[in-house]
Amino acid sequence: MHELLILSRRADQYRRLIEDARLPQLHISATSDSDDLSAVARFEIVLGEPSLVRSALTRLTGMKWVQSTWAGVEPLLDPSLRRDYILTNARGVFGPQMSEYVFGYMIARERRMFEKYAAQQAGRWDPAPPGTLRGKQIGLLGVGSIGAALAATARHFGMRVKGYTRGSEGCADVDAYFHGDDRVAFANNLDYLVSVMPNTAGTRHLVDASLLAALPQRAVFINPGRGSVVDERALADALQSGRLAGAVLDVFEQEPLPADHVFWRTPSVLITAHTAALSVPEDIAPVFVDNYRRWTAGEPLRYQVDFVVGY
Amino acid sequence: MHELLILSRRADQYRRLIEDARLPQLHISATSDSDDLSAVARFEIVLGEPSLVRSALTRLTGMKWVQSTWAGVEPLLDPSLRRDYILTNARGVFGPQMSEYVFGYMIARERRMFEKYAAQQAGRWDPAPPGTLRGKQIGLLGVGSIGAALAATARHFGMRVKGYTRGSEGCADVDAYFHGDDRVAFANNLDYLVSVMPNTAGTRHLVDASLLAALPQRAVFINPGRGSVVDERALADALQSGRLAGAVLDVFEQEPLPADHVFWRTPSVLITAHTAALSVPEDIAPVFVDNYRRWTAGEPLRYQVDFVVGY
Repeated sequence: MHELLILSRRADQYRRLIEDARLPQLHISATSDSDDLSAVARFEIVLGEPSLVRSALTRLTGMKWVQSTWAGVEPLLDPSLRRDYILTNARGVFGPQMSEYVFGYMIARERRMFEKYAAQQAGRWDPAPPGTLRGKQIGLLGVGSIGAALAATARHFGMRVKGYTRGSEGCADVDAYFHGDDRVAFANNLDYLVSVMPNTAGTRHLVDASLLAALPQRAVFINPGRGSVVDERALADALQSGRLAGAVLDVFEQEPLPADHVFWRTPSVLITAHTAALSVPEDIAPVFVDNYRRWTAGEPLRYQVDFVVGY
Repeated sequence: MHELLILSRRADQYRRLIEDARLPQLHISATSDSDDLSAVARFEIVLGEPSLVRSALTRLTGMKWVQSTWAGVEPLLDPSLRRDYILTNARGVFGPQMSEYVFGYMIARERRMFEKYAAQQAGRWDPAPPGTLRGKQIGLLGVGSIGAALAATARHFGMRVKGYTRGSEGCADVDAYFHGDDRVAFANNLDYLVSVMPNTAGTRHLVDASLLAALPQRAVFINPGRGSVVDERALADALQSGRLAGAVLDVFEQEPLPADHVFWRTPSVLITAHTAALSVPEDIAPVFVDNYRRWTAGEPLRYQVDFVVGY
């Protein structure tokens, strides 16, 4: 028998979904608070939110595998923490939501949705012609499973697609790849720059003054990824001076975004509250179910996190 | 030599695009006002806006073919007008713009974009979870070239697609087809109803009280097609009573929408000013060029309008 601990604010929902999968040889415990549990040491497998798992890490002495319910596993990557277990994260499930966020806000900008809504509120018929995504150029910082989903949607809408990655060039919907020091060539002539980079030592402030200066003035930066990737002071400068046309930001170095943050006072910024892609148990449970079958069969798990690289 | 008259407010732009195509045996005249022209009778071919062509119709005695720059050719369909020429309209070019309009506004609704923008204006961090298109059901009234483009985008975003047509069932992205008296079954359980029907005698007030009553309360009606398809009084009643969740309207029985129209005072209506898909010379000129090659080769033209059916 394998002992599974579900550690999530949606523990009951996860328990139902996993019970429905009728996995063999699995005994399930589920809670949103590990302090409630006795005999914590018996759990071999944990399915949970990284921050909750972290708080129980020293007590989960029998733990061999953690399946994160999130894509981001930063709470578990602190070098001071144990790394004597397999960590898998949630991948391949956020692409569709991310696509809706990114392309919804890009179309909103092209079609001047907020201006047209204001015209309507004023009772004004506004025939100003809208723009279109077709023929425009999008640059993707990061082309993992989310970036690949964005590239496919960009292709669907007739956009040209540039991709910036560490080295991989596996996505057929990307027209041109860039790596390493090619950031200026990557940024050249982009209409939209979208960051879906993970939070790692290597991506910190990748979007800095030099990258922003290489974008055309008409460009819009969209960040549904991780706030740590952006030098927020440099971004605010570029926006406030008009060297960059706009930004749509879902993530920030500090969340919730502090009340005195300059972004609240920058008219060309659209702010959303880290809701671009939510972790939905219906999406994540199948990732666990698939990996559990691999675990019991002695096969390698999918979506293993490299503790050093950070994703 | 074939004599072409370009009759459009963008006559100069059309002339440049068609000159660039270097079509054989073609002499081009271009104007935005046919009153400027002498010897109007010499023109065999007219490329133009239907309303401008209509005003010159009796003088264009040598005219054998009109290529409309618009999809809608209502000004030329009046039974009192001559029908002794071939009329072709613009098709196959509005799908991408229509997709951006329809899916942009659907995502805006799912993600509460206007509410979240208002929260931002108030300096409020708003973590309310957004909805998603994935798994939702869209119903397309009309599955011509525009409907097929919408069906493909709906499929891309993981939606289920119902189509209502006169009889055709040619689009592979439609999951279920409905015809004739099946309007109630068609409307059943839709999240979004989208009309891309042309303006014909057969489509007048197709969206009436009975169709609207068959929609679930959560449904949203989107009309980027033709205003004549909608019984506006019935739509306003359904919206104001809350039996229908919302509407996104780009076209109306009278345009511009009169200042005293009830839609201006209906909060669940989003109004745009017949800008969902614009006729762009770069899109339309290739349609003419292709048809001109067919014309000179004695082949049937594409996109011929049936004066009786109306499209």
